[in-house]
Amino acid sequence: MELLRASIITIGDELLIGQVIDTNSAWMAQQLNLVGITVSRRVAVGDEWNAIWSTLDEELEKSDIILLTGGLGPTADDITKPLLCEYFGGKLVSDPKVLAHVTYLFEKVLKRPMIERNIRQADVPDVCTVLHNRNGTAPGMWFEKNNKIVASLPGVPHEMKGLMSDEVIPRLLQHFQPPVIVHRTLLTAGIGESFLAERINAFETSLPAFIKLAYLPNYGMVRLRLSASGYDKETIEKIMEEQFTLLQEQVADVLVTNKDESMDQVVARMLLDRRETLGTAESCTGGYIAQLLTSVAGSSRYYLGSIISYDNQVKKHLLDVPDSTLESEGAVSEATVIQMVKGALAALKTDYVIATSGIMGPDGGSSRKPVGTVWVAVGNQDEIITQQFHFRFDRRRNIELTATNAFNLLRKFIISRGTEKTNSH
Amino acid sequence: MELLRASIITIGDELLIGQVIDTNSAWMAQQLNLVGITVSRRVAVGDEWNAIWSTLDEELEKSDIILLTGGLGPTADDITKPLLCEYFGGKLVSDPKVLAHVTYLFEKVLKRPMIERNIRQADVPDVCTVLHNRNGTAPGMWFEKNNKIVASLPGVPHEMKGLMSDEVIPRLLQHFQPPVIVHRTLLTAGIGESFLAERINAFETSLPAFIKLAYLPNYGMVRLRLSASGYDKETIEKIMEEQFTLLQEQVADVLVTNKDESMDQVVARMLLDRRETLGTAESCTGGYIAQLLTSVAGSSRYYLGSIISYDNQVKKHLLDVPDSTLESEGAVSEATVIQMVKGALAALKTDYVIATSGIMGPDGGSSRKPVGTVWVAVGNQDEIITQQFHFRFDRRRNIELTATNAFNLLRKFIISRGTEKTNSH
Repeated sequence: MELLRASIITIGDELLIGQVIDTNSAWMAQQLNLVGITVSRRVAVGDEWNAIWSTLDEELEKSDIILLTGGLGPTADDITKPLLCEYFGGKLVSDPKVLAHVTYLFEKVLKRPMIERNIRQADVPDVCTVLHNRNGTAPGMWFEKNNKIVASLPGVPHEMKGLMSDEVIPRLLQHFQPPVIVHRTLLTAGIGESFLAERINAFETSLPAFIKLAYLPNYGMVRLRLSASGYDKETIEKIMEEQFTLLQEQVADVLVTNKDESMDQVVARMLLDRRETLGTAESCTGGYIAQLLTSVAGSSRYYLGSIISYDNQVKKHLLDVPDSTLESEGAVSEATVIQMVKGALAALKTDYVIATSGIMGPDGGSSRKPVGTVWVAVGNQDEIITQQFHFRFDRRRNIELTATNAFNLLRKFIISRGTEKTNSH
Repeated sequence: MELLRASIITIGDELLIGQVIDTNSAWMAQQLNLVGITVSRRVAVGDEWNAIWSTLDEELEKSDIILLTGGLGPTADDITKPLLCEYFGGKLVSDPKVLAHVTYLFEKVLKRPMIERNIRQADVPDVCTVLHNRNGTAPGMWFEKNNKIVASLPGVPHEMKGLMSDEVIPRLLQHFQPPVIVHRTLLTAGIGESFLAERINAFETSLPAFIKLAYLPNYGMVRLRLSASGYDKETIEKIMEEQFTLLQEQVADVLVTNKDESMDQVVARMLLDRRETLGTAESCTGGYIAQLLTSVAGSSRYYLGSIISYDNQVKKHLLDVPDSTLESEGAVSEATVIQMVKGALAALKTDYVIATSGIMGPDGGSSRKPVGTVWVAVGNQDEIITQQFHFRFDRRRNIELTATNAFNLLRKFIISRGTEKTNSH
């Protein structure tokens, strides 16, 4: 079976000097995979004529579909459009529909006068199909050559996303008849990657050839993904289901979820199912847990708010952590996080509270409490449980680890009290 | 002048199905640029023998330095090590130093028994120089061939970072004598990319050939970057300084900072300089502003905490927003954010407070208050100012835009009150 292969080319010097992180191509890859198109390469190149040209040559050798992002802005360093025009042997012509759209955006939305550069954004190669960009001024472009597709999209994430969903994916499905790709993912916690690999070794070696197993270790948890591809959707899904059930049986004792979701999403779903609410009292995570939860639409149904007590005065005044506790035990202590849970339960009036306090680094450590020392408490009106962690990473990762482990602690807390809670509802 | 070129190859199926966002290569590119090495390409490939092999072939044609990350774990889908061993014609041998380090990590840090797979992590090709990975079990590998360098690093971010800083960068500097690259960056706010381009067009065309100008538009702000490279450091820096001064003069009225820093870093620096403190009362940003501030070490000197009032009950009880205001004006209103500032100033006892309330989408909009409607207030004990925004993007971007614009509003608030404040200190 021949795979339908795509290459993603991202264009921009800012990618090569590391000034921006490329989030576009991960999103694009997800969308392509969902419809059975395999991304075989992602290449980032600078705003350089020859580099873009030769990369196009190379990727057209390797892939059936080339998606480009970036380099479509109105300034001199944006050269993707004239380059593609020359590459496909066309000439630039003003597109009346695009011009009307650009004019509309300037008059009604941006409320700024248009200048020559903006008018030029409506110029498109006469050898492409223009893709309507409802979110911005730079149109997408669709070229066909020897049954291969080259599509060019702006680098601004929400413009690229709109064009992918509205134009690129539907057109690709129409043009090609891609194979089905099925992924099934589960998340484990509390077992190392090597041990997991030992345990499921026999399972892995007995997998049918068209199913691949991947390990994605992250933050003390390991995600396992089975991927199958082929043209007979029914058969593939049936065999995948059998294999995924087998895999779940092998890891039942360490299984967190059999969906492709993160630890915070698992907890959010539990809260939603149980119609219960969560609040947080964050010190060392400084709002990271709150923003993880609120980054999901609809989170207001289970997440009510947080008291971020970065400073000890805030711990005292808003969470009633006594001076004596802060002095004798310190802000990073079991006694402090327990009181933070109590204080936040009283202030926020939620069913559960997560509290965190720790030393995230790189400064602030001591021999008794080195960088990475973290106390987490979770609880409700009836009970509070705590856990101490010793993370050994950089600030960012220590914060992320604290959040993930705090969610895991709350997950276990809710499960262990599941029967009573369900009864009391 | 011949540039010293590097390619970064990231390995892993998870990159091609979009399950993880590649943050490694942006960081690596930054480090390489700082020492005058130009990253000319970044390529992501899957865990596939032939794909990795041919990508190595191709990148060795184009670049002097090839850095690989990923595929060094202990499981079957990690094939980078045997592949590199074969590619460079070596054989795998157990390295006693690496074995001692892996054993130490398992015994003292991970506190788990070692299994065969872990012992195999100490196997290295006998044709490479082993790079010590102080943060993990997978060693880095350094190969030389025809005066070109291939170095392989683990994909785990903090392990990769340690190896880059400890081993790869110092060795590259020793091996090559790279040209100097100088970047100077400034940030503007309140002017569109096209207008800016019109304004500095003459400046841009008169730049010396070895200096490049790039526009990096983002969230209503435009970053401008000048990049120069060459071997005569003193001359380059002198001319760069002159040009950067000229550029600053051209954008003086819209200049936010002449450093490569984000809007929140600008505000953090202002607070630190003035020894003043900030608190936040976040509704629609849900902790995003707090975690931005606290992601920086030392932020506790100017950031004391937040009341995240995602739910209206929290706005009432902890920020004293009256029922009547919430009922007549709604949670997304000028009156609400003004009271949120007052309430948070009283509760958190900071010099300044930022308050946000808005509809981030995709749900929750109405015809009177569509998705993207946001009220921001900033103030101190003496005065509170507000601004309304209408963002038109997805949830994530609406949140980020709110945060950046809130920081910008606070920046202007502090500047406009600068003289008095300085006097009162």
